[in-house]
Amino acid sequence: MAHLSLPEAYNRAPYPVVGHGPRTVSVLKEALASVDDTLAADLYGQGRLIADFQRKMADYLGKPAAVFFPSGTMAQQIALRIWCDKSGQRRVAYHPLCHLEIHEQHGMHELHHLEPVLLGDAERLIGLNDLEAMPEGIGAVLLELPQREIGGELPQWDRLVELTDWCRSRNIPVHLDGARLYECLPYYAKSAAEVAALFDSVYVSFYKGVGGVAGAILAGPDDFTSEAVVWKRRHGGDLISLYPYIVAADYYFDRRVSRMAEYWQGAQELAGRFNHLDGVRTRPERPVTNMFHVHFHYAAEEVGRVMAEVAQETGVGLLSRVVPLGEARSYAEVSVGDLYAAVPKERLDWAFREVEARLTHR
Amino acid sequence: MAHLSLPEAYNRAPYPVVGHGPRTVSVLKEALASVDDTLAADLYGQGRLIADFQRKMADYLGKPAAVFFPSGTMAQQIALRIWCDKSGQRRVAYHPLCHLEIHEQHGMHELHHLEPVLLGDAERLIGLNDLEAMPEGIGAVLLELPQREIGGELPQWDRLVELTDWCRSRNIPVHLDGARLYECLPYYAKSAAEVAALFDSVYVSFYKGVGGVAGAILAGPDDFTSEAVVWKRRHGGDLISLYPYIVAADYYFDRRVSRMAEYWQGAQELAGRFNHLDGVRTRPERPVTNMFHVHFHYAAEEVGRVMAEVAQETGVGLLSRVVPLGEARSYAEVSVGDLYAAVPKERLDWAFREVEARLTHR
Repeated sequence: MAHLSLPEAYNRAPYPVVGHGPRTVSVLKEALASVDDTLAADLYGQGRLIADFQRKMADYLGKPAAVFFPSGTMAQQIALRIWCDKSGQRRVAYHPLCHLEIHEQHGMHELHHLEPVLLGDAERLIGLNDLEAMPEGIGAVLLELPQREIGGELPQWDRLVELTDWCRSRNIPVHLDGARLYECLPYYAKSAAEVAALFDSVYVSFYKGVGGVAGAILAGPDDFTSEAVVWKRRHGGDLISLYPYIVAADYYFDRRVSRMAEYWQGAQELAGRFNHLDGVRTRPERPVTNMFHVHFHYAAEEVGRVMAEVAQETGVGLLSRVVPLGEARSYAEVSVGDLYAAVPKERLDWAFREVEARLTHR
Repeated sequence: MAHLSLPEAYNRAPYPVVGHGPRTVSVLKEALASVDDTLAADLYGQGRLIADFQRKMADYLGKPAAVFFPSGTMAQQIALRIWCDKSGQRRVAYHPLCHLEIHEQHGMHELHHLEPVLLGDAERLIGLNDLEAMPEGIGAVLLELPQREIGGELPQWDRLVELTDWCRSRNIPVHLDGARLYECLPYYAKSAAEVAALFDSVYVSFYKGVGGVAGAILAGPDDFTSEAVVWKRRHGGDLISLYPYIVAADYYFDRRVSRMAEYWQGAQELAGRFNHLDGVRTRPERPVTNMFHVHFHYAAEEVGRVMAEVAQETGVGLLSRVVPLGEARSYAEVSVGDLYAAVPKERLDWAFREVEARLTHR
């Protein structure tokens, strides 16, 4: 058996476990096949194609209006800028592992001159005490549901209501980073609109649980979205045509948004399998969405080698990437989508038996 | 005969004259059909699909490196920001009708805190005297080829060399807004690399003469493009996947970049027909690219009505939109692409005879 790298072994495995399938151009081709060739492109934010989808998502989120953006990075910086401009404040509060803090090259600071106030501890969810400890002069609070960088944890519903009530009673706008909002809905047993109603504005994504190509929606009050359109042009996001992303977003939203409970169920089952391994624990231990992190008390190199061997031997790709956490620990992010249900249970049993034998018997 | 609006009449006309054809999803479908379903998506700026196209365009433009952007708006603000940061200046000089000045909601100012210095007069090209009259402290000069908002005029080659030499001899970086660069090459009888060699950085577009879906390339030195990648992320332009635009850009670039001389020839012929009408003059009188403006000594409403009538009667759509210039004057922008050559000459003769009869016999 040739020794393949983990990504190679994962990509060749006939039974990959994570996500919806490979990111190839076929994802877009399938979506485009669902619309007529003569469908007119959107033109600088105008036209039925974009207007209809923005209306559909505004209604789904229970907000007066919605704007399609090429990226969440752009949408969220703009949301925070608009809220801060309204009150004349320059500080926004969010979790220490917020996307804006760790994945955007500090665009919010460099472009909008907004300063972050980090709430609480990187290793846990934001609590009411963290809000109470905020300094004065906060222009907006951002809450992310689920908190992706700690494995996709969610506050209990009553705690979430406490957090948003606290902000709104103090006239601090509260924005929802809902990159994985659909994925939370089965756990909360709420509609997207019921969750979004706790917030002044909300962003949702189309290439995580929905599995589209790219793109985001930012929804909120009419005056807020009108300003967002102006900022979208300033950022260079008002493309002549965004339809490739919109057609794919619409198509996969319709196919997958109702399947989030199934993905969540799969995530709980899969996390249970990982938790049976010695020196392996998932976070959360019982997932509350379709995602979780797997923490290994083993070096990334060792986990990667074992997962690659198991993928080649059993055909089951459990992970495609392992991140080192110091010398002897590591973790991986898992998101369950369409693929998990297609993996025969006896194959999964076999794969986990092999992982157990290889990881623990050294 | 029903009275249709000009856009409606134009869209229904069997012989439209402007551009490459309707902007529908078929444009993207055709391009995607040229690549294999299993082609892997680009991932946050990485992967062969984007790397190969960036390399191809860097080579075409004769620059060390190139970065694909979702829009020219984003690419050009970033180019100017990088040049200004290098010298610590905050002022950039460009034509009064530069895209950044009139079409971007002042994103350059609002996001990058750069201030424009307008060079010369809105109604003519930038001259050497305009550069000589610039104040001190200019971080970059932007030149647009052709100058779109005055009909697509071009400086003579020697004048262009004078302008760029003047800037570079004073260590002022000079950036090329090459939204329509390919379209200039037949007139200059130069390669894209020969034109770009006069400039420190260059932006080109893929949905004007090339007729793609959207997107832009920014090319320049390696340290410049490395910084551009960081700014692309800050702007929210580092999408998880840009392949819909890249595949279309590559496909239509290959099909159309060699046809620019033919489009230019068509533009000269078509401009000649307009110039035979009383009270109608094109700008430039003899086009130097595939584009020109038609100026009417008639109100926009009258021109629009006549063009709609002629489209319905003769089947020839000459214009889809007329812009008022005060009460008794108006203008329209014309870009010649694939469609012009397919219009039978006798049809065109008929259409222009009808325009002449209707516009002048009142």
